[in-house]
Amino acid sequence: MLYEDRVDALVSPKGALEMLSQEEIARMSEDSGDLHELFRRCALAILNCGSDSDDPAEVMSIFKDFEVRIIQQERGVKLELTNAPSSAFVDGKMISSVREMLFSVLRDIIFTYHEYNVARGLNDASSDKITNVVFELLRNANVFRRIQDPDMVVCWGGHSIARHEYDYTKYVGHELGLRELNICTGCGPGAMKGPMKGAAIAHAKQRIKNGIYLGLTEPGIIAAESPNPIVNQLVIMPDIEKRLEAFVRTGHGIVVFPGGAGTAEEILYILGILLHPKNEGIPFPLVLTGPKESAAYFEQINEFIGAVLGEKAQSLYQIVIDDGVEVARIMKAGMEEVRLYRKAHQDAFYYNWKLHIPDEFQRTFEPDHENVAGLNLFFGQETHLLAADLRRAFSAIVAGNVKPQGVASIKEHGPFEIHGDKRLMKKLDALLEAFVKQQRMKLPGTAYVPCYKVITD
Amino acid sequence: MLYEDRVDALVSPKGALEMLSQEEIARMSEDSGDLHELFRRCALAILNCGSDSDDPAEVMSIFKDFEVRIIQQERGVKLELTNAPSSAFVDGKMISSVREMLFSVLRDIIFTYHEYNVARGLNDASSDKITNVVFELLRNANVFRRIQDPDMVVCWGGHSIARHEYDYTKYVGHELGLRELNICTGCGPGAMKGPMKGAAIAHAKQRIKNGIYLGLTEPGIIAAESPNPIVNQLVIMPDIEKRLEAFVRTGHGIVVFPGGAGTAEEILYILGILLHPKNEGIPFPLVLTGPKESAAYFEQINEFIGAVLGEKAQSLYQIVIDDGVEVARIMKAGMEEVRLYRKAHQDAFYYNWKLHIPDEFQRTFEPDHENVAGLNLFFGQETHLLAADLRRAFSAIVAGNVKPQGVASIKEHGPFEIHGDKRLMKKLDALLEAFVKQQRMKLPGTAYVPCYKVITD
Amino acid sequence: MLYEDRVDALVSPKGALEMLSQEEIARMSEDSGDLHELFRRCALAILNCGSDSDDPAEVMSIFKDFEVRIIQQERGVKLELTNAPSSAFVDGKMISSVREMLFSVLRDIIFTYHEYNVARGLNDASSDKITNVVFELLRNANVFRRIQDPDMVVCWGGHSIARHEYDYTKYVGHELGLRELNICTGCGPGAMKGPMKGAAIAHAKQRIKNGIYLGLTEPGIIAAESPNPIVNQLVIMPDIEKRLEAFVRTGHGIVVFPGGAGTAEEILYILGILLHPKNEGIPFPLVLTGPKESAAYFEQINEFIGAVLGEKAQSLYQIVIDDGVEVARIMKAGMEEVRLYRKAHQDAFYYNWKLHIPDEFQRTFEPDHENVAGLNLFFGQETHLLAADLRRAFSAIVAGNVKPQGVASIKEHGPFEIHGDKRLMKKLDALLEAFVKQQRMKLPGTAYVPCYKVITD
Amino acid sequence: MLYEDRVDALVSPKGALEMLSQEEIARMSEDSGDLHELFRRCALAILNCGSDSDDPAEVMSIFKDFEVRIIQQERGVKLELTNAPSSAFVDGKMISSVREMLFSVLRDIIFTYHEYNVARGLNDASSDKITNVVFELLRNANVFRRIQDPDMVVCWGGHSIARHEYDYTKYVGHELGLRELNICTGCGPGAMKGPMKGAAIAHAKQRIKNGIYLGLTEPGIIAAESPNPIVNQLVIMPDIEKRLEAFVRTGHGIVVFPGGAGTAEEILYILGILLHPKNEGIPFPLVLTGPKESAAYFEQINEFIGAVLGEKAQSLYQIVIDDGVEVARIMKAGMEEVRLYRKAHQDAFYYNWKLHIPDEFQRTFEPDHENVAGLNLFFGQETHLLAADLRRAFSAIVAGNVKPQGVASIKEHGPFEIHGDKRLMKKLDALLEAFVKQQRMKLPGTAYVPCYKVITD
Repeated sequence: MLYEDRVDALVSPKGALEMLSQEEIARMSEDSGDLHELFRRCALAILNCGSDSDDPAEVMSIFKDFEVRIIQQERGVKLELTNAPSSAFVDGKMISSVREMLFSVLRDIIFTYHEYNVARGLNDASSDKITNVVFELLRNANVFRRIQDPDMVVCWGGHSIARHEYDYTKYVGHELGLRELNICTGCGPGAMKGPMKGAAIAHAKQRIKNGIYLGLTEPGIIAAESPNPIVNQLVIMPDIEKRLEAFVRTGHGIVVFPGGAGTAEEILYILGILLHPKNEGIPFPLVLTGPKESAAYFEQINEFIGAVLGEKAQSLYQIVIDDGVEVARIMKAGMEEVRLYRKAHQDAFYYNWKLHIPDEFQRTFEPDHENVAGLNLFFGQETHLLAADLRRAFSAIVAGNVKPQGVASIKEHGPFEIHGDKRLMKKLDALLEAFVKQQRMKLPGTAYVPCYKVITD
Repeated sequence: MLYEDRVDALVSPKGALEMLSQEEIARMSEDSGDLHELFRRCALAILNCGSDSDDPAEVMSIFKDFEVRIIQQERGVKLELTNAPSSAFVDGKMISSVREMLFSVLRDIIFTYHEYNVARGLNDASSDKITNVVFELLRNANVFRRIQDPDMVVCWGGHSIARHEYDYTKYVGHELGLRELNICTGCGPGAMKGPMKGAAIAHAKQRIKNGIYLGLTEPGIIAAESPNPIVNQLVIMPDIEKRLEAFVRTGHGIVVFPGGAGTAEEILYILGILLHPKNEGIPFPLVLTGPKESAAYFEQINEFIGAVLGEKAQSLYQIVIDDGVEVARIMKAGMEEVRLYRKAHQDAFYYNWKLHIPDEFQRTFEPDHENVAGLNLFFGQETHLLAADLRRAFSAIVAGNVKPQGVASIKEHGPFEIHGDKRLMKKLDALLEAFVKQQRMKLPGTAYVPCYKVITD
Repeated sequence: MLYEDRVDALVSPKGALEMLSQEEIARMSEDSGDLHELFRRCALAILNCGSDSDDPAEVMSIFKDFEVRIIQQERGVKLELTNAPSSAFVDGKMISSVREMLFSVLRDIIFTYHEYNVARGLNDASSDKITNVVFELLRNANVFRRIQDPDMVVCWGGHSIARHEYDYTKYVGHELGLRELNICTGCGPGAMKGPMKGAAIAHAKQRIKNGIYLGLTEPGIIAAESPNPIVNQLVIMPDIEKRLEAFVRTGHGIVVFPGGAGTAEEILYILGILLHPKNEGIPFPLVLTGPKESAAYFEQINEFIGAVLGEKAQSLYQIVIDDGVEVARIMKAGMEEVRLYRKAHQDAFYYNWKLHIPDEFQRTFEPDHENVAGLNLFFGQETHLLAADLRRAFSAIVAGNVKPQGVASIKEHGPFEIHGDKRLMKKLDALLEAFVKQQRMKLPGTAYVPCYKVITD
Repeated sequence: MLYEDRVDALVSPKGALEMLSQEEIARMSEDSGDLHELFRRCALAILNCGSDSDDPAEVMSIFKDFEVRIIQQERGVKLELTNAPSSAFVDGKMISSVREMLFSVLRDIIFTYHEYNVARGLNDASSDKITNVVFELLRNANVFRRIQDPDMVVCWGGHSIARHEYDYTKYVGHELGLRELNICTGCGPGAMKGPMKGAAIAHAKQRIKNGIYLGLTEPGIIAAESPNPIVNQLVIMPDIEKRLEAFVRTGHGIVVFPGGAGTAEEILYILGILLHPKNEGIPFPLVLTGPKESAAYFEQINEFIGAVLGEKAQSLYQIVIDDGVEVARIMKAGMEEVRLYRKAHQDAFYYNWKLHIPDEFQRTFEPDHENVAGLNLFFGQETHLLAADLRRAFSAIVAGNVKPQGVASIKEHGPFEIHGDKRLMKKLDALLEAFVKQQRMKLPGTAYVPCYKVITD
């Protein structure tokens, strides 16, 4: 259901104050094109938090007359909204978390532009430069805290999951929260919302007033996965690769819940990195978990990884079924290992500088038909390189499913064609088919038309 | 299910520090009898928060070797616990909210003793004196805040309610919380927990870090209705009458969810007071609400009130079915009326001094067989007096159901006999029977044996 | 100079909110006599903070039409002032610290009355009871903090001191503050203000935002020694003996600057207590200090103590001349000794329960002619008893100099006659004469007429 | 006196945490030349806060073996100091304010470099660009606050002033602080310290815990005017012109105390700007004030301004002699005018965007012999242009007096020669001579050798 009511409003930041230079205001102003449009679309995604559509085109078309303008005032800037979705308001007053997120978007777009001209400059940057820019973006967003102990658990998993899976993510989040751990997710619905909700209640019980619910997103995905309002730190990374880097450099451990193509992309990303020889010995707690009904699902994933990346990859994670307390204890114990390692190696608690992220995982992958067709999905290369191209394949499927550009491209040119080793392609095809059957590709309600074709012969 | 594991622990207050005089420590020490035993029992009730039994005798017997001692240390006092229920701990560490509540109990028992010698002195006190003591107890518990607007919604309702009713209380709490209202309940499970949970999530969305979840209890009921851990202000009033007075003097409005005898007692309490001529014109928002399945339940209640107390009583509340937004809007609008009234009459926002509470509602009612038999449940008296004795009848049933002394008394002497006007008795009997059928008398799991007999002939 | 301008104002508490019961308001109301008059006089003393008179009668007569009333309002009580001294206001707005102190006075008078009926009940109390009441009064005033380390340095010294002495007290306070120590004084001008001012600047340099400047006073002295506005915690103890007990139980060490009769009283008080056999081994850092010009003054004091109380008494303090760094280092080192001792003996950091205060130092001494004449100032008794009666002699002189009742009594009956051992009397007379010559008895500006006669033959 | 003791220390930021990227750390590292040396010199100036030398060469030579290195650690970066002046420490522990300022310097140097490559890039920048960069620098330093009312009073005046003048600056600061105004100065001794000290005490009386004592400095002057430790916000602007712009854009009003060449430079700067036609009607409270002994001094200044810039310039300020209350009231009233103006013109309270600063006041002036000789100090040009070049003349004298480069240049090439209109030159010479006689050119203790020659014939 889409709330289609409209509201006009003038909103000012609470707590976090926004003071912009006249140059910055001019840059974001209506007639300046790209940047303004980027801001408008992200703002709409955030205001649309009450909706349960993951079809950005639909949202954009319904609210095509939505507009946002920056107003300079005596105590800082305000945002003037026209035809905003009413779901962001309670009795005509904007929900505080939504208001906060609006200003987060503004902050990140201004910073990103300023730092490297809307990411364009980054294309030729060195790996170190990219890592430094990711750091600066997160620092500018006040993500870094002076913590005593590593405590940030990244939760990955599908935006479209079943009710019992969702309840399980809340339960795990509750157990993590009881142990005073914080949560970071991709900030949409489903497995990105449940752990935060559970942790929020647990933090209330533990009288933790400064619990962190960090959402990391990017302009391409934000419209399909509107940040849930528990998120109290939101960062808009410039693209999916920088967002993934932000996850693994700020998180101290990862819990993976059931999900679809996006979750598979994330699993391949972290495994590919941890498989790199330079990362040998760096502790990184990683758990795949779900309710008892998900046992088969994880069996399938595990088998796929074994077949494709080998036993070594399988040794990098634990699978825990139906036991949130155990998941939380593994994470808590893992945090201590991370703490000792960082202390011993003089690495920052708040940013995993030591982790080596190979170029193949760091550079922007443009998921167009040519690039997808050119992926090297054959055995006989280093495992982490195979993981890198598999990650790209799943990334393309996510784009084709829910990202505006990807969806448009599929509409025009038909499904992506994925070539590669025959055995591998069969495994892949089976996995994807299972995702489709389990309705993990898109939010339920519409029949799913695949945006890909796995060439198995 | 009862968690029967035991833990020994030494706990110190966080935030709120406890500095006791040597006199106070001596007074609470093990060998000093009554006061220590009172503290021990209340402490056990709080530690037993994870349990879902409402049978105090069972709890007391399982944890009969539980002990608590006060230790003087350089930074204040600590509590030494032996054989405490493990449900209050996560991986051996006490949950912060439980710890806070332990010290709240200590604070209130010391203060109550100090102020009026365990309530004994209050028996002969004037009505004004009682009202002042209730004020002092709440002030000592730091309940009073310097608020801009009245915002405290009391939520009443059963501790034993159905799942869909519980979900509805969460939904209403969420809508109240979105409107920046706070919640006060009797602090047990069911309708006392749901609104707090909903409000906690809503407050997180509204970035309200100082949301209040006030629990008011008393030694007789605490063991059967362990405070839920969302409660962040807990006050132990000396008896049920002082607790009811605390509800209506600190709350700015009341929402009543479905419930059993206790809820009926509460409804009669507030109606009896509002019916008193001196309270004419004092605004007091009062809503009875439940999910659509509860429509019939409230119809029955409404009819009972109409038959027994008349149309005027019915005009004091609104019944809202299946509409949390409407409930929240009524409360929000009511808060404004209360604000204007208090401002105009120079009455405190934080304590409803102006409300007249007749003697009959204020004095301790000892629910023994003699007193119950002596209740005047006939027409032909002032309505608020009839309400007062009806309130006492329900109070006795609650005691017979779940309060240690009441349960023991019923065991010894058989059910209470309730006499009165024939037509009234029939109405009453029907209402009580409905409560029994709907499993509202006790937490499910055991067959309910009535502790009363309505004499209808 | 006395500022004689008047201001009418309605003031409400900031931060610290005052919520009074109707009983408490009634008790303090205009027509209820003693209590109201006590409050009026203390309030006037505080409002008169800009004045430099220490003649309470003069102040009272100039502002005889000053009045204060308590008003109940929706957000708490307010104070309505009529004909208040304008020195408490800046451009018509009351200085925040003055406002805070007004409400401190109200708090303490209400509590003192409530607890033991304006100190009357305490006359027959046991020593333990008195100590517990002092504790409760300080706790009610929020004086106790959950500190990591003992850090409270009591500074004693004259209200009437020379400019270079005053500068020296600022310098010492600055050095104490740089070492993160807090200051407690009797809260008037001179040596009671300088250390606080110095520490305030040092705390600013050390970015300590919660520095404590604790002022302990009593109704008899407050009019002559208006609290200086740096004081951010003010407590009105019921009489001089309770105030002295508060000093030595909350302070962790004492620095004594030059002063007159009051300072001598304080020195005899602490020495008498420390000389008691039960206090053997309790660490209590004690330093007498002044600028180089004060060397002779302290030589005289030291000699007097040696002659009267013996070498053992002399061994309890150090004399440091013209070296604030050394004073601060001694205190800092002493704090550590105190910390270890309290920890080892499970005594609270915030209240020195272990210190034994003999009855003779604890009970109220009424400084009238009969009582002064009856003092036992002969050798041949236990040293701490001699110290006790000497303390009372000086206490009487202070009363005769500046306390309203004492001054009136001297006016009527002539000077107090102090009898005792001939040699002792000569020493005493010499000391007092030196105080007179050095203008330490009263603020300069008027010729000093002694209120005592030492009978030396 | 110079404290020559040395201390080695490892210091970490308190409160304000410093998280640097590896790129930033590398950039500031020892071998990277200029930037490291700049940081080293500024750090030394700050550590040398206890000294009273204003001869940077002397300081640099005494502490030539001082070194500072950035260390990456698990909770952020630390600074490793070797051979640091002991005056920054109390018993071996660094004073918190000094520690804070060290990290402020680090922050500003990193930002300045990052933003425009050590100011070099700014030389060709547009006026708007410069104003935006000044804004960004101040924003990055967290100078901007979300204030209710304009409240920042800039205090200008000499670093070398007489005791009674210094006491007067404290008195004025106290009156400003009592009115809840904040203070901004150039952050050295004398008139830059007194108002902060007075305000700090007044803020304590008003219970203002977040009083602002903003110090604005630049690398050229910091060594001669070490920030005093009351400063709780320190910003290192890239050069004198950006620093002056920061003063007038963040300050809401200006109080000028007696001073020498630097103060004259500042007076000419603000008058020149306010004289510009575009700034007509913008309220800017400006008061020249001193104790009664300074009446003649201000008469002379006033006469000079009248003779050189005319009556219009004189109408822009008020002269107040010996009346701190009056100064504070003028400022307080002026704040209200500023507030109304900004509100009406939608200009930010925290940054005076509307004020037009002509190019001549904004661009870096290199005070070398050629540039000084080339100044146009003749009548017959627009008044604000004459003011601009006069400002530069005084700026050169400051450089020749105390800035390292200027001092060296004078040593090599002899005094600056200042040419211009004969009458003007005579006035100027008289004024400068008066400064010399009154010992306003350098801190006392050395005979002053003029670094300039006014060519009067």
